[in-house]
Amino acid sequence: MDNITIDKANENVKSNKRIEKDKLGKVAIDKDLLYGIQTARAFENFNISDSKVRKELIYAMVTVKKAAAMANEKVKTLDKERANAIVEACNAILAGKYDDSFITNSLQGGAGTSTNMNVNEVIANLALKICGREPGDYDYIHPLDHVNMGQSTNDVYPTALRIACINLVRALSDECSKLQESLQRKENEFEFVVKLGRTEMMDALPITLGQEFGAFAQAIARDRWRIYKVEERLRQINLGGTAIGTGSNANRLYTFRVIEIIRDLTGIGLAKSEYPIDLTQNNDVFVEVSGLLKSLAVNLMKISTDLRIMNSKPFSEIHLADMQAGSTIMPGKVNPVIPEMVTQVAIKVMANDSAISICAASGNFELNAFMPLIAESILESLTLLKETLKIFRTKCINTITANEECCKKHLDNSIVLLATALVPYLGYDKASEIIEKSDHNPDRVKEIVLEENLMDKDKLDEILNYHHTITYL
Amino acid sequence: MDNITIDKANENVKSNKRIEKDKLGKVAIDKDLLYGIQTARAFENFNISDSKVRKELIYAMVTVKKAAAMANEKVKTLDKERANAIVEACNAILAGKYDDSFITNSLQGGAGTSTNMNVNEVIANLALKICGREPGDYDYIHPLDHVNMGQSTNDVYPTALRIACINLVRALSDECSKLQESLQRKENEFEFVVKLGRTEMMDALPITLGQEFGAFAQAIARDRWRIYKVEERLRQINLGGTAIGTGSNANRLYTFRVIEIIRDLTGIGLAKSEYPIDLTQNNDVFVEVSGLLKSLAVNLMKISTDLRIMNSKPFSEIHLADMQAGSTIMPGKVNPVIPEMVTQVAIKVMANDSAISICAASGNFELNAFMPLIAESILESLTLLKETLKIFRTKCINTITANEECCKKHLDNSIVLLATALVPYLGYDKASEIIEKSDHNPDRVKEIVLEENLMDKDKLDEILNYHHTITYL
Amino acid sequence: MDNITIDKANENVKSNKRIEKDKLGKVAIDKDLLYGIQTARAFENFNISDSKVRKELIYAMVTVKKAAAMANEKVKTLDKERANAIVEACNAILAGKYDDSFITNSLQGGAGTSTNMNVNEVIANLALKICGREPGDYDYIHPLDHVNMGQSTNDVYPTALRIACINLVRALSDECSKLQESLQRKENEFEFVVKLGRTEMMDALPITLGQEFGAFAQAIARDRWRIYKVEERLRQINLGGTAIGTGSNANRLYTFRVIEIIRDLTGIGLAKSEYPIDLTQNNDVFVEVSGLLKSLAVNLMKISTDLRIMNSKPFSEIHLADMQAGSTIMPGKVNPVIPEMVTQVAIKVMANDSAISICAASGNFELNAFMPLIAESILESLTLLKETLKIFRTKCINTITANEECCKKHLDNSIVLLATALVPYLGYDKASEIIEKSDHNPDRVKEIVLEENLMDKDKLDEILNYHHTITYL
Amino acid sequence: MDNITIDKANENVKSNKRIEKDKLGKVAIDKDLLYGIQTARAFENFNISDSKVRKELIYAMVTVKKAAAMANEKVKTLDKERANAIVEACNAILAGKYDDSFITNSLQGGAGTSTNMNVNEVIANLALKICGREPGDYDYIHPLDHVNMGQSTNDVYPTALRIACINLVRALSDECSKLQESLQRKENEFEFVVKLGRTEMMDALPITLGQEFGAFAQAIARDRWRIYKVEERLRQINLGGTAIGTGSNANRLYTFRVIEIIRDLTGIGLAKSEYPIDLTQNNDVFVEVSGLLKSLAVNLMKISTDLRIMNSKPFSEIHLADMQAGSTIMPGKVNPVIPEMVTQVAIKVMANDSAISICAASGNFELNAFMPLIAESILESLTLLKETLKIFRTKCINTITANEECCKKHLDNSIVLLATALVPYLGYDKASEIIEKSDHNPDRVKEIVLEENLMDKDKLDEILNYHHTITYL
Repeated sequence: MDNITIDKANENVKSNKRIEKDKLGKVAIDKDLLYGIQTARAFENFNISDSKVRKELIYAMVTVKKAAAMANEKVKTLDKERANAIVEACNAILAGKYDDSFITNSLQGGAGTSTNMNVNEVIANLALKICGREPGDYDYIHPLDHVNMGQSTNDVYPTALRIACINLVRALSDECSKLQESLQRKENEFEFVVKLGRTEMMDALPITLGQEFGAFAQAIARDRWRIYKVEERLRQINLGGTAIGTGSNANRLYTFRVIEIIRDLTGIGLAKSEYPIDLTQNNDVFVEVSGLLKSLAVNLMKISTDLRIMNSKPFSEIHLADMQAGSTIMPGKVNPVIPEMVTQVAIKVMANDSAISICAASGNFELNAFMPLIAESILESLTLLKETLKIFRTKCINTITANEECCKKHLDNSIVLLATALVPYLGYDKASEIIEKSDHNPDRVKEIVLEENLMDKDKLDEILNYHHTITYL
Repeated sequence: MDNITIDKANENVKSNKRIEKDKLGKVAIDKDLLYGIQTARAFENFNISDSKVRKELIYAMVTVKKAAAMANEKVKTLDKERANAIVEACNAILAGKYDDSFITNSLQGGAGTSTNMNVNEVIANLALKICGREPGDYDYIHPLDHVNMGQSTNDVYPTALRIACINLVRALSDECSKLQESLQRKENEFEFVVKLGRTEMMDALPITLGQEFGAFAQAIARDRWRIYKVEERLRQINLGGTAIGTGSNANRLYTFRVIEIIRDLTGIGLAKSEYPIDLTQNNDVFVEVSGLLKSLAVNLMKISTDLRIMNSKPFSEIHLADMQAGSTIMPGKVNPVIPEMVTQVAIKVMANDSAISICAASGNFELNAFMPLIAESILESLTLLKETLKIFRTKCINTITANEECCKKHLDNSIVLLATALVPYLGYDKASEIIEKSDHNPDRVKEIVLEENLMDKDKLDEILNYHHTITYL
Repeated sequence: MDNITIDKANENVKSNKRIEKDKLGKVAIDKDLLYGIQTARAFENFNISDSKVRKELIYAMVTVKKAAAMANEKVKTLDKERANAIVEACNAILAGKYDDSFITNSLQGGAGTSTNMNVNEVIANLALKICGREPGDYDYIHPLDHVNMGQSTNDVYPTALRIACINLVRALSDECSKLQESLQRKENEFEFVVKLGRTEMMDALPITLGQEFGAFAQAIARDRWRIYKVEERLRQINLGGTAIGTGSNANRLYTFRVIEIIRDLTGIGLAKSEYPIDLTQNNDVFVEVSGLLKSLAVNLMKISTDLRIMNSKPFSEIHLADMQAGSTIMPGKVNPVIPEMVTQVAIKVMANDSAISICAASGNFELNAFMPLIAESILESLTLLKETLKIFRTKCINTITANEECCKKHLDNSIVLLATALVPYLGYDKASEIIEKSDHNPDRVKEIVLEENLMDKDKLDEILNYHHTITYL
Repeated sequence: MDNITIDKANENVKSNKRIEKDKLGKVAIDKDLLYGIQTARAFENFNISDSKVRKELIYAMVTVKKAAAMANEKVKTLDKERANAIVEACNAILAGKYDDSFITNSLQGGAGTSTNMNVNEVIANLALKICGREPGDYDYIHPLDHVNMGQSTNDVYPTALRIACINLVRALSDECSKLQESLQRKENEFEFVVKLGRTEMMDALPITLGQEFGAFAQAIARDRWRIYKVEERLRQINLGGTAIGTGSNANRLYTFRVIEIIRDLTGIGLAKSEYPIDLTQNNDVFVEVSGLLKSLAVNLMKISTDLRIMNSKPFSEIHLADMQAGSTIMPGKVNPVIPEMVTQVAIKVMANDSAISICAASGNFELNAFMPLIAESILESLTLLKETLKIFRTKCINTITANEECCKKHLDNSIVLLATALVPYLGYDKASEIIEKSDHNPDRVKEIVLEENLMDKDKLDEILNYHHTITYL
């Protein structure tokens, strides 16, 4: 980030710089930069990677700031001009024009304070410009006294994280529905493709390919429901609780008003927690949400593996459409790249869940210092899943075709289903004996049954008709 | 397990042995042993540790067997004498008399088949004895043809696991309630113990010790609700679906009847899944449950750490009752052993969650071969949590006393709360400046405010009265 | 553990009880029990499961106690009679006669103090009996003043854990060697079984089945080497460091002597750490060891999955010997139960690794309170792996047979290898074009090449002879 | 990535586009773009996030390509002009001029094929431009036939990943050394700051603050050694093994030559694996490396927590320099932001380790499809750790000052150390009794000993001089 020069020189500052100061000293910042000294310090302190705080979180925080300014104006703790300027600045940021101004690292220390300060400073400076003033003229609009009025990182940040999560949860829930529908379309399409069901990878009993996609659809339907319902758990917010949930420095009237406004602005049924001290320090809700995302991940990995195996040559029960050439050395080779991507996303979500859990468990007292990693991990999981489901659906599930011939071939070669069909009539041990005697040759099984006069031919034909066995329970 | 001699000799078998055989050959088993050849083979195949399948799962499977026998009798697929003998055998096992007969390892291959066979064989032999016959007389009562009639491991095992989980989920939910109540009693008890709240371990604003326990109680209340509600997700069972969920070899009348009976026997509102193929192969529900247990674990670890720190000498804000001597070398030392145990259980639950997730993600097709590890892990987590909550409540939470003097001392030595109180009146920057000027001495802060005529004394006294700040929002 | 009655009644104690007391009060213990009051308290405090501290750890601690008594006798801090009695008691325990006396839970709080006290008390009471005295006559032989002389849990426990680990590491390393040899025998046996290599599950180029087992063997060889080498890291011990590593209350002469003796007793090249303060508090070595066990686990899971897929019917490239009947409903079905068990053990080891890491990361200051879970997890991983490798080798790897016919069939049906062989002569794009034109029919590929006069027949035959491609690089 | 228009229109292509085609169809690409159709397809297939393949991996792959071109030229499979153009193109990329051309997602399917194709295409088009030709003129320089000559993704990608890892491992090892030195400087600086050692958070025996930093340094020294040594394990490469390790389509002379050249270009002692089939499919080495990174992470989290607690007000044993303002609401509050960031990085590394392990365990047959997530995770862990150690050292460790007064105060208030010192003279039980009698008042302990004539004053003073106890063992 060389283009964001931050000089520490106290004198001879070039004319294109402004000076900001705090208790640690002074920093010279390019005049046209919207962030200020706290952001600059945070940038240097946490400059360990290119991973910035996610846009979804920044925008949610800006929305909270907008609501706070509106509420403060309503309750007359903030005058109209400043409030309007702040609101206008927030709108401009939400329009996507200032994304580059948010530069703090996603794995920052300080429990999100730097993210909050980055937002406060950018809003303040933008508001100042809107008022025809210079960035840095904090006497008029101060990042803390005005933009952060009645707030603390510790109520703003968890509130914004919940809003960002809910927005993504809704989108993910929609994607789950669409995937479920795609799977159900395949369930119908493959309704009459009879194939061999396998338990522990070994030949078991007949099933239809449609039923297999139906089982996938059921799992995704559960995921969809879980993810849809979990929004409720995220709607409780500690906004107004400020530093530790006790509401210090927040005007009571403001507190009630800001919740109403944020509800309007977001279109989410947010509610003030009855015990903000709790939500300020406890992060089990994110562990809960992440655990549900992991349930989805687990299903996605299971489905993807089934698809990869059924698509492999010896199985050849389905065909995944070609998406790209599969090898730089083997012409004609095509790989199941979409399920492979899906599996990796699933594993990533599992790993993120582990990070979220350790963070949540490691909190101390009134605030968990590791919320930034919780935020980064859960937002990454939500975003990755949302985008991945879309591609999984359109570029994989929807493209699948059945290979009925191979499905039938495997079924005809299998013997376990014959043996099983005999059990109710001959008993398990006799059926086993016949199988051994037949040398695992399906045709021999029938011959032996008839040779030994264990059943007449009509009865035998009837019970060995596997189509009976595949109807739903 | 030397006392369970399993001879493979085919001849000259000692008179105290009976011979059982399967397609792999013959095994000589002590005559008085209730399990048979399949159990013996499984014991040898999976003999990697002393960890046997958990009692909770065995009993739930026996209950399923009992229901199946009753249902089969009702629909006349099983005669009364055999059915009664099987039911009686199940009752005897459920009375705890034959625990030693269940010897298969918890990490068995075969997706639970060996557990099912162990149960089938013990029931069959016990039923034979009840009928006045010898163990091994399978022509009369066969482990598969009679005890396992209309069933498969693949419907019996997942059903039993759900029943075992629900029983433990209920007990755990109760323990959560009790812990919540204990925490709330402390919330009341410590209502007026004002202390310093800390964010990121650093001095922040005043809070009461009661509020801290209140926040703990809120978190546990959420856990209790989650765990209570998740029972619903476990109530869907695939019983009747047999091998792959299509219901092969299960009589339709039996299928409906057995669900009713198992509901009666367990007192749980179990319901037949509408899509048993799904529940036979998908294990996301256990991932969901385990994820919620992890949420509880995370809260327990957070609470335990807070207690350990507040109990440590430099803090001394609370005192945990002595539970045992703490050192073999340092007399008088006492350690917070209960929170330490709780933390380890929490970490174990987190690790189990990871195992469950990997297992569930690694399933293939119509059955997940790794259900035994899922079962072992989730039942261990449930059991450990249940027992641990009880001890945490009785031997730790209930014993905690407050050290009001130390709480007050830390509060009086702190300066951040004074600074914060000044912000609404003087602005953030001015307040910061005063703090620096005061050299972080609380008394000096007040003097400076008065010296600089920033506020009159009455006003100052009023805003610095921290009792204002600790009321609920 | 109802048979171990622990009365708290102070009076009217039955004659078969002895009274022990500590600062918390008195406990009545059955006279013939070898453990004492500290063990009894620990049992009650941590009674959350049936999981006791592992024998391997108990025995290693007893060995340390024996060494300490011998060293104390040498440096005359302990008289001969007491020392001899203690040594004799240790020998009796190591002979396996008193396993039932070690009853503390594996997930205990107190960083192992209760395990140490359990060992101290049992040794003291056994030594008292050897001296013809009554258990509980601690004035003569005291669990702490004599058995624990010069020691603390905090040096004894980590030392014992290292010894227990090294013993298991050696056994595991041996099992890795044996598995590697078995795999290499299969590598030789299958040297000429040409089959299709697959990348991303899709047909790739020819390989031999022998080479596949050779690749497995290479991975296990690396594991064997890692596990063999890591013993070095475990040999540094903090014995003599006592409570925090500074050696308080340990006689210097004793400290040097005890290391020599423990080296003799164990046959392990143990060395006194140069900085025992470090080893008393840091547990990264166990994270390192566990990480290497996880590397083995990962290889085992990969190999097991390959075997399961190759053994499944559509592949049928290998056959795993039948180990037990595979289904309670489907006669003739046999499952790959050993690889399934191996996979579960692998997943368990991965989960244990996670627990160990969180514990090690969560330590504070001079001692990690969560060592009991570290101990339980690493010893479980080591034991499970050792036993599992043995069964994997004898009941799975050694039993595998090749299905040459199927191997050949898959190879003959594949087209990618033909395409690849053409690339150096025709270029990637032309080769791709031919594949598409051939409709993925191997015979058509050859025809097209000849039809289009792209190559003469001899040349074509030569380059399409896949035996060329499978020699080692 | 809207500015990279990829038209699928086959006709009426705008003049600023070139058309590329493959078996799936045609794609119109902006003429000045250096990547081609395969990259464009991959971009669309895996467009789930902004996370691109890491620069470290791209550069390592480019270096491999450069070596391959040089080797192919040497063995005359590639003519000089093309070889030179390719080499020149590689150099330009390595100079950092074309970073924007590498656009494939880090979580791609296809086991890295898309990364390889992206590199091949960019090099080919850049080389074409160097030759004065148009991008897309693949008849002259073809991404596969020339740039990828003798290679496959499956040998190039694992080789490049090892090179990237080694480069980072070396840098990380250096950072560990520097951190160790900083810690040792503090060990010396605080050599005489006597303080209370604590076990399980509770008062134990005296130690120096220097010794505590010494213990930190020891742990980091072990990490440094592990990370330094693990380079050996990464040096074995499968380059020349091509698709499955058997070396198909790679000229033997080339194979030997390319290893020599890549060794020269990288300055790393790379060696051709003796069994490339193994390294092509097995990824346990990355699990091993990641496990060692986790050991470092665990130590970093432990150290960071110790620092955070010692820096918290009730402890006040050390002071971490202020790095930034700590609160948006509480003036004067400063948080330990650097240790908080370090802890989050540690947790992230632990999570990445989990992802790497699951990926490595989930591989099938001759190639692990999930290498891209392995690569992303291990490179992220290495990079984060390297950068974090630097900041931890310069902005935290080096800034720490001791608060000797508080250290002394805690020590003087503690009683356990007095009790412990008495044990060798009075026995554990008597010492315990005195402690209880003293009401945990240090002064009373001494009085009681004298009152009860248990020891004379000189002796008592001598043994209670805690400076004796803190020397190294």
